[in-house]
Amino acid sequence: MKILLVGASGAVGSAVAKRLDAAGHELIRAGRRSGDVKVDIGDEQSVAAMFQRVGRLDAIVSAVGDVHFGPLAEMTPAQFAIGLQSKLLGQIRLALLGQHGLADGGSITLTSGIVADEPIRAGANASTANAGIEGFVRAAATELARGMRINAVSPTLLTESAAQSGAFFPGFETVPAERVALAYQRSVDGIQTGRVYRVW
Amino acid sequence: MKILLVGASGAVGSAVAKRLDAAGHELIRAGRRSGDVKVDIGDEQSVAAMFQRVGRLDAIVSAVGDVHFGPLAEMTPAQFAIGLQSKLLGQIRLALLGQHGLADGGSITLTSGIVADEPIRAGANASTANAGIEGFVRAAATELARGMRINAVSPTLLTESAAQSGAFFPGFETVPAERVALAYQRSVDGIQTGRVYRVW
Repeated sequence: MKILLVGASGAVGSAVAKRLDAAGHELIRAGRRSGDVKVDIGDEQSVAAMFQRVGRLDAIVSAVGDVHFGPLAEMTPAQFAIGLQSKLLGQIRLALLGQHGLADGGSITLTSGIVADEPIRAGANASTANAGIEGFVRAAATELARGMRINAVSPTLLTESAAQSGAFFPGFETVPAERVALAYQRSVDGIQTGRVYRVW
Repeated sequence: MKILLVGASGAVGSAVAKRLDAAGHELIRAGRRSGDVKVDIGDEQSVAAMFQRVGRLDAIVSAVGDVHFGPLAEMTPAQFAIGLQSKLLGQIRLALLGQHGLADGGSITLTSGIVADEPIRAGANASTANAGIEGFVRAAATELARGMRINAVSPTLLTESAAQSGAFFPGFETVPAERVALAYQRSVDGIQTGRVYRVW
């Protein structure tokens, strides 16, 4: 399959790239600053140009999106908009524009995260963006045409990120990125749609 | 209790007003075009001015927010932003700004909707905004200070709206607005937080 992987250089994305590559797929790596194609998911023109450049795809995988972390008592709507514009609408933009260049039976895989269900301190923006992605996937799966599918992967904290972010996830079990990557392959090479694959 | 009700003239809001009024509360009705206070939840200045004007509150209830309905295959990110800016961020703006003028132990009640869980045709934007609201409520409940609480009410199609919108909800049971209004009172006068009250 010809697969576009957006966020290919991230902690999740690089593990997903390794897994899909090992499975024999043809990967086009996209990222803000690196990859085969540069893209800013917050920018309509940038996303449209990327899809035009890469042509027909069998799968779109997104492991990308910023959110704002900070105490609820100090959070402003402008800060809150960061996650809504990037992780939520940014990924949805990939789906809305990407559906038109996807082959029959192709798939879209987006990324949510454990804090959709299990809130953490200072994480209200992440919980909202992640829950929104999961709502979108449930709905979009019912409407996608030509046998196209859409799923989300909801990872917990990566073992590889524990040193940096572990303090925000007290007592949470971590999972290695390569285990999280399996869920993305399951979405791409599998048959399900409207699923949230929780890797916790 | 002194309660601000945003969206007081809507199908849900007017039933909520009746219920909270019958329960003996002091109501301040807010709306885009009518009410004791005019407010545009998409406009930061307008929301800030409303909270300054109404002063200390015991509860904030929101039954407001627009979403875009349309086929997924034709939906643009700009159309998708309507629900994210209005029903999602608009209601969250009420919570973020409103928390500071809320009395100790006060409550915030937002509105999601059944399509967060049960998608309908052309409803991907509504599913996403509603799911986001529910994620926000789960997270914000864990961080709110001074005993403040936050919940969401997720109504199905109102019996009163069936003539107008029933075609979008084939086979869905409807509920009378006065039954939905009970869930709002349960949030305001009850003790729970982080709950989504589903009225289906």
